[in-house]
This record gives sequence, C-alpha cells and structure tokens, in this order.
Amino acid sequence: MKRTAFFISDGTGITAEALGNSLLAQFEGINFDKITLPYIDSIDKAHDAVKRINQASESDGQQAIVFDTVVDETIRKEISSSISYKIDVFSAFLKPLELELGCHSSYSVGTSHGIHEMDRYKDRIESVNFALDNDDGARTRQYDQADIILIGVSRCGKTPSCLYMALQFGIRAANYPLTEEDLDEEDLPAILRPYRDKLYGLTIDPFQLAAIRHERRANSRYASLDQCEFEVRSVEKMLRREKLPSINTTSFSIEEIATKIMAHMDLDRRID
Amino acid sequence: MKRTAFFISDGTGITAEALGNSLLAQFEGINFDKITLPYIDSIDKAHDAVKRINQASESDGQQAIVFDTVVDETIRKEISSSISYKIDVFSAFLKPLELELGCHSSYSVGTSHGIHEMDRYKDRIESVNFALDNDDGARTRQYDQADIILIGVSRCGKTPSCLYMALQFGIRAANYPLTEEDLDEEDLPAILRPYRDKLYGLTIDPFQLAAIRHERRANSRYASLDQCEFEVRSVEKMLRREKLPSINTTSFSIEEIATKIMAHMDLDRRID
Repeated sequence: MKRTAFFISDGTGITAEALGNSLLAQFEGINFDKITLPYIDSIDKAHDAVKRINQASESDGQQAIVFDTVVDETIRKEISSSISYKIDVFSAFLKPLELELGCHSSYSVGTSHGIHEMDRYKDRIESVNFALDNDDGARTRQYDQADIILIGVSRCGKTPSCLYMALQFGIRAANYPLTEEDLDEEDLPAILRPYRDKLYGLTIDPFQLAAIRHERRANSRYASLDQCEFEVRSVEKMLRREKLPSINTTSFSIEEIATKIMAHMDLDRRID
Repeated sequence: MKRTAFFISDGTGITAEALGNSLLAQFEGINFDKITLPYIDSIDKAHDAVKRINQASESDGQQAIVFDTVVDETIRKEISSSISYKIDVFSAFLKPLELELGCHSSYSVGTSHGIHEMDRYKDRIESVNFALDNDDGARTRQYDQADIILIGVSRCGKTPSCLYMALQFGIRAANYPLTEEDLDEEDLPAILRPYRDKLYGLTIDPFQLAAIRHERRANSRYASLDQCEFEVRSVEKMLRREKLPSINTTSFSIEEIATKIMAHMDLDRRID
C-alpha cells in the first residue's frame, strides 16, 4: 500500500517536514512517498501544488496526506481545495494561541527559519569555521575557545557531530582523533589535559566502524576488524580510567548524537 | 512582557522546536524565553520537567507555553499536569490520522530522527565527507559525482550551504571559489566547463561580504569594500554572461539558501 504525503510551506518547509515525519513515523506499515513543496508563496504556485496533490491522490487511488504550514490565508485556502486529507498546523494552533497570549499574530511568513539578524548568521558561520579549523586535531591552539572537544577513533562520527552542533546550535565544537600512539599512553594526550572539562568521548561498535572504514580504504589494516576492535577497546578503557563522559554512537542518528551530547554536557545553544 | 516556552520531547526535540518556533514567530511583540527539554523518556524526568515548568509559570506570573511531542501517553499525562498552556501535537493530530489511514499508530518514540538504517547514516556521512573533500576548490576530480557545485567569491556562504545540504538532505555538494584570476577571464574556469549543468552561483551584498571578511582578516585588501565590490560585480557579470542560476544570499539564512537552491535546481534529497 502506497500513499503520498506532501509537506507544504511558504518558507523552507522544514517545520512541515519535521512535524509530518514525526507523525508518519508512527505508521510503520504504510509506505509513504514524501514530497516537500517549499516556497509556495503565490496563488499560482498554490494552484500548481493543488494539481500535483490531485494527481497523486488519483494515481494512488487514495487521497494524499497534506501537512500545511502556509501562513497566508488565501494561499492556504487554495491548498485546502485539493483532494487530500489536510493537517493544517496554523489553523489548528494559531487561533487558540492568540487567545492564550492575548494578542494577534503577525501572520508573517517563514520568520522562524529566516535570517532575523546579521549577528545570528555570522555566529553560525563562525561556528562552522571553528569546527572546520579545529577538525581532526589539525589545529589545537583554539581549544580554549571551544565549547566542547569530541574525542574518539578515526571515523567514529566526530566531524559530522561537530558540524551539526555548529550549524544547528552555533556551538563551537572541536574534535581530536585518538591515534594508536595516544592509546598506548597511560595518560591523556598532553594537548588535551588542560581541557578535561570540555572532553566528550564517542565510541562505536567495532563492526560498524570496520564497515565505515572499509568504504574509505577497502581491505586495509586500518579497516580490519582486529584493528577496529583494538582501537575501540583502548578508547573505552581510557574514557573509563579518566572518568570522561561518552556516548556510543552506533544506533543513533547525527541529530540524536548532537542533542544527547548537549543535554549531557548541559550546553546551551548560542543561536535560537 | 516575558513568557517562557518549553519544547518537550522524548526524542531529540527537533520537531517540537521547529513547530514551536514557527508558531511563536507569529507573535513578535512577546519576548519568549525558550527552553528545550529533550529525551524526557521516563516518569522521573517528566516529573522534573513539570517542576521546571511550574517554576517558570510562577516566576513569570503567567503560565508557560508547552509544545509537547512526547509519544508515550503516561509521560504526556504527567507533563500535562503542569501549570501551563499546552500544545499537544500527538493528541491533536495522531488520532484523526489513525482514522484517515485506517490503522493504529505504533506509538514508537523518536522514530523520525532516529537512525532507522545503517545505510541512511552512511549516506549522510559520505555526503559530509564529499562536501569536505570537495570544499573550496581544493580537489576537483570528484566533480563528476557531485549533485551540485556552488561557485562564488571567498566567504559568500558556499561552505556552510554545502555542509547543510549534505547533513540535512544527503546531497553531494562541492564548491569552487572564484578568484581574481578566474574573474579576469572571458570564459568559465576550464575545470568547471564540463559541469555547466551543476553550477549554481552565490552572490552577496558587498558591504556584508566586507563585514564578514573583516572578522577573518581585519583591515586587509581582501576585506576592503573596494575589493569586495569588484569581486561581487565580476561574479555577477560572469553569471549573467554564462546564464547560470544564482541566489543573492544577503538576507537569507542557511536553511533558506539550501532549500531555495534545491527547489531551483530540482534536486531531490537523498535521505528522508
């Protein structure tokens, strides 16, 4: 059984997608074909969207599901003329919120993922630059400015986690790869010692690590299960010995890893 | 007037935040203090959350607004015992969806931002690696595998846009910085010519570019307004001459830039 779901917005569509995906994930038996239509900000575009929705409903033989976060009422009305089951976020929640807050909403489009102020944009770019500049232990002299320093073996997910925290939350995240030489020592690498409070360990299932490394360098010692097991066990030993907080990334998505780390370390986002 | 808003979830909290921010952005006159409480997945944690909500309501002198995407009913009931105005996403939409879809929801927690399958995780990591490997024109030999190649002057937003598309949508995005030498030519840089269909230009207001470059290298020729104006004008001339699609990034957030490019180039996400 196949059904088409549309995420429709006059902005980026990120809110409609997040909400729609959360709700649809509760129906595992159904195979949804998901289509995002962002920037539906004119009647003409709404008209085209209605055509696409109706075509999908017809070819599926069942009405499409439409998640709609369009703010403008005229455009929303046009969308609602489609043959579909509608989940209309603003109609459902905005009026009651107006009552609760005792004031009218501004009905402005896409304010939530807009740029707002130049400062916010710059903060974010600076955080991305920070993550890139302090990636993979290449440079370490900015560690005093870091909010957090992720440590772990090569390819355990440090870089994507740092970049996600930078882009999404404006966090200054550095990362340092623990090498075989580091793991042979009885102590933390000297460069990390002054920053104990910022250290956070990533571990991973050795089988998964081997699979990931294999795609990078097939059939190398680096990607062998023996080597992966040795490195992961050594890191886990170091994390226990040093009593450092850590997360096993194996069964988590990047969003989950990033948000769990932030909750665990009590890190506040720098941008809204 | 200050009011506290809570985004509460048993998962990452990303959906509750996206929805809550979209709705609250419609009330510009009110100063919201926003607090995300992710991973509220036990009665104990829910109990602590209720305490925090009640404290906020008391100290604000007005009840807090709670956006709740907790799936588990027992936990949701505990949250709903707080002194607050609740927007309960699953109660509002899940039951009607069950009726429409003709089946029960699985009430599984946080499936939407979970890892699902190993493949999705690997796709994403590979896309981030691709963006990093093909950043800033450092390497160009993988351009045949790129979904898109962003071009523009240094510091116009290419790298964060590529990383965002990689992390969020699994898109393989490369970027190539147009230098003064490139801009002196009457033709596209030779390395780019075979990939015309993948090229997308970023432009920017010269004043903003100068401000951004200033933070990187203060008082340099590189950051001077004259230089920024010259480079931006030359790029805009090239884009017009070559009839390449482009976006002026000045007043957009990274989400907006990324989603507009994808809509414009008709790029489909590689991950859900």
